[in-house]
Amino acid sequence: MTNATKEIAHWTSNLTAEQIPDRVQHEAVRCLVDWVGVTVAGSDDAAATPMLSLLKRFEGSRESTVLGTSAETNPLWAALANGYFSHLYDYDDTYMPGATTVHPSAPLWPALLALAEHQTLSGLEAIVAFVAGFETQNRIALAAGPAHYERGWHVTGTVGHFGAAAATGRALELNQDEMIFALGTAGTQAAGLKEVYGSMGKPLHPGKAAMDGLLSSLLAEEGFTSTRTILEGARGFLAVLSDSPDAAQATQGLGQDWTILDNGFKPYACGSLMHPTIEAVCAIREKLGSDIESVTEIESTVHGYVSWVTAKESPSTGLEGKFSIFHAAAVAMVDGAARLAQFTDERVNDPQVASMRDRVSITVDDDLPKCAARVRVTTTDGRVLDHEVSANKGTRENPMSDEELHDKALDLVAPVIGTTAAQGLLTACWNLSSAQDFGALARATRGEK
Amino acid sequence: MTNATKEIAHWTSNLTAEQIPDRVQHEAVRCLVDWVGVTVAGSDDAAATPMLSLLKRFEGSRESTVLGTSAETNPLWAALANGYFSHLYDYDDTYMPGATTVHPSAPLWPALLALAEHQTLSGLEAIVAFVAGFETQNRIALAAGPAHYERGWHVTGTVGHFGAAAATGRALELNQDEMIFALGTAGTQAAGLKEVYGSMGKPLHPGKAAMDGLLSSLLAEEGFTSTRTILEGARGFLAVLSDSPDAAQATQGLGQDWTILDNGFKPYACGSLMHPTIEAVCAIREKLGSDIESVTEIESTVHGYVSWVTAKESPSTGLEGKFSIFHAAAVAMVDGAARLAQFTDERVNDPQVASMRDRVSITVDDDLPKCAARVRVTTTDGRVLDHEVSANKGTRENPMSDEELHDKALDLVAPVIGTTAAQGLLTACWNLSSAQDFGALARATRGEK
Repeated sequence: MTNATKEIAHWTSNLTAEQIPDRVQHEAVRCLVDWVGVTVAGSDDAAATPMLSLLKRFEGSRESTVLGTSAETNPLWAALANGYFSHLYDYDDTYMPGATTVHPSAPLWPALLALAEHQTLSGLEAIVAFVAGFETQNRIALAAGPAHYERGWHVTGTVGHFGAAAATGRALELNQDEMIFALGTAGTQAAGLKEVYGSMGKPLHPGKAAMDGLLSSLLAEEGFTSTRTILEGARGFLAVLSDSPDAAQATQGLGQDWTILDNGFKPYACGSLMHPTIEAVCAIREKLGSDIESVTEIESTVHGYVSWVTAKESPSTGLEGKFSIFHAAAVAMVDGAARLAQFTDERVNDPQVASMRDRVSITVDDDLPKCAARVRVTTTDGRVLDHEVSANKGTRENPMSDEELHDKALDLVAPVIGTTAAQGLLTACWNLSSAQDFGALARATRGEK
Repeated sequence: MTNATKEIAHWTSNLTAEQIPDRVQHEAVRCLVDWVGVTVAGSDDAAATPMLSLLKRFEGSRESTVLGTSAETNPLWAALANGYFSHLYDYDDTYMPGATTVHPSAPLWPALLALAEHQTLSGLEAIVAFVAGFETQNRIALAAGPAHYERGWHVTGTVGHFGAAAATGRALELNQDEMIFALGTAGTQAAGLKEVYGSMGKPLHPGKAAMDGLLSSLLAEEGFTSTRTILEGARGFLAVLSDSPDAAQATQGLGQDWTILDNGFKPYACGSLMHPTIEAVCAIREKLGSDIESVTEIESTVHGYVSWVTAKESPSTGLEGKFSIFHAAAVAMVDGAARLAQFTDERVNDPQVASMRDRVSITVDDDLPKCAARVRVTTTDGRVLDHEVSANKGTRENPMSDEELHDKALDLVAPVIGTTAAQGLLTACWNLSSAQDFGALARATRGEK
């Protein structure tokens, strides 16, 4: 198979003027002449006004915070950067109803927060806007169906465009026509290919969704038009990006059923399929007390799919550790945790963890659901400890408590901005519904920076 | 069929806090807490560096010109606005080899020019970069094939991402690996649906392509990674966005055949299918001299497809006039031209033009190619004047001359910035290959503004 990308990259990155015939160069000049005409004329057209108005609003603006840093920029860039940060660890929330998977917060909060520093939003207004975006994007994901994902789209990247537009559109108090156009503009920008998985490209997707969605609602507010049938149209989002969409699902139960109630949070900083095993190991570790070196075997029984996806027996990097059920079980036994600190290169190569990993074995039982695990630990003194998890922590059946969410967030934020600032930030988050100024949250992520 | 867009727009634009149950609101807060954790932590990760570096480069920058105006903004926004302007009239250049259609200049020059104001490029460097982008995007369009367009994609919007990345990547002197990543990042942002045709959404596509492509190459320069197989990968651009791609065409003849030599320019500000008739009418008008009121009939014989697409007999707006072969033939006879000024609401409703329109008739001959027309004009004094066009002006077979291109551009630019400034601007364009500072062209589009 031809490696077209590499060939093109090679050619373009090495192209010189000498390789380009004169007439080709001249043709380029002709393009320029023609282009300069249509473009300068276009800038004077009535349809240029919304774009120009929007540019004027953000030209040189430094009003939105790049979270966790001292940097400030315009709201669109802030949405991009913060959306990118949100998904960097693949540790953010997940809506996974079976037919699709969306990381719902990553395209939404960055867009809303960046906007809230430009134009004050109360905490309650932010909540309303967030829910509008949340329900919109998840339903569109359901309408696009499994075929959307299977075709190669990263669902968070695509539907996140609609979510961010709907959320910020609500916050901007767009009217119905403006909202239709905002959704249209968002949908025609929707993108994100699974081909980039494993690179910085994956977290870029919710960043782009946040920025493009915010751009769409701001343009709509300025009078920018689009189609009125972006979802259901013959050449619209669903028909073009899915091979078997069901447009009806985009609105089914809207305002009555809340997909947000099925949202999941990740207690552990690795693939969800390993979570039941980690949880069971942690439960057994509590019973063992400090005596973990007495462990002779950790046997986890899981669905065959889980075993297949997480089969990396001897990982050598933190990233590989995130896809090794052997490392996950071992580090959970040694550390009693499975957060970011447990999936570093160092921790994967730690002798004690590596030794424990050699004692892990996996058994397959396809009668178990993927969210379940049965773990048996045996010790040098002949003890046998069993623990079964039927639905892993973080799912609807077994949700993370507020305290657990708080602890997870504190564990993530404190090393960046200090414990006191992190506590203050999280308190402000919990008090969102009574906050006067949602945007203040963004500044609070700076800590002492 | 459900009107999902409208329903969602209605719901989101009217949603209030009262409609959202407490537990739903609380779930939103939980999302926020969890999100703030992963996001602030993400901002401190090594992978955040390219994004932060890029933000710092453009935070508050006002270095790039919004063409034809006095506005300045950062290069990415300038690329967006200028790309949008380029395609506002659908009057820009067109690569139309039969299997696909691309407007090649609109995503490329805006990205390059905005970049050139940030980082000096000579005219020759700009030409090299333009050609790199031109050939890249056109070949990718050929590889995606007719199935790409038929599925519902606006080809200029999608492949323009690659073109803008390749062009600006070349200008930034990216190495091969960086170029691979720039193309990967561009490809995972590629979007643009035909559903938005007829709205501001269509010209937005090359604007977004210009911005996203420039973003991609700038990120790659900062160390941002992506896939290495964005085109040919199983979940890459071609497989996902086309039902029958041919990756080989992406590189076939690269550096040997130049698609730019098949590029077309539009002499008339309306759909290409009407161009042969306009050209023939103008030729006959020259023979008639000032005696156009002697015309009793204008009969144009064209391919049935042409007749079908341009069948609007009684247009009432300028936009409708752009799709009426009756108006086009009439206004060409009255004015001897078919530029922007001939497709305004006023001109369409002008009594003399409307009267001439009543004398136009269309005959179908499917043996004619679509780029051909046979026009016969009869007059009150019994003259019969025939003119046949076998390939309309602006195609490879019948290219616009440099002078004709110059006149077209001058006609577009002079009303915006004045004739003297327009002449200076165009002279600078023609002298591109010897220019020291390509970016100066951008400032020259301001005229006295």
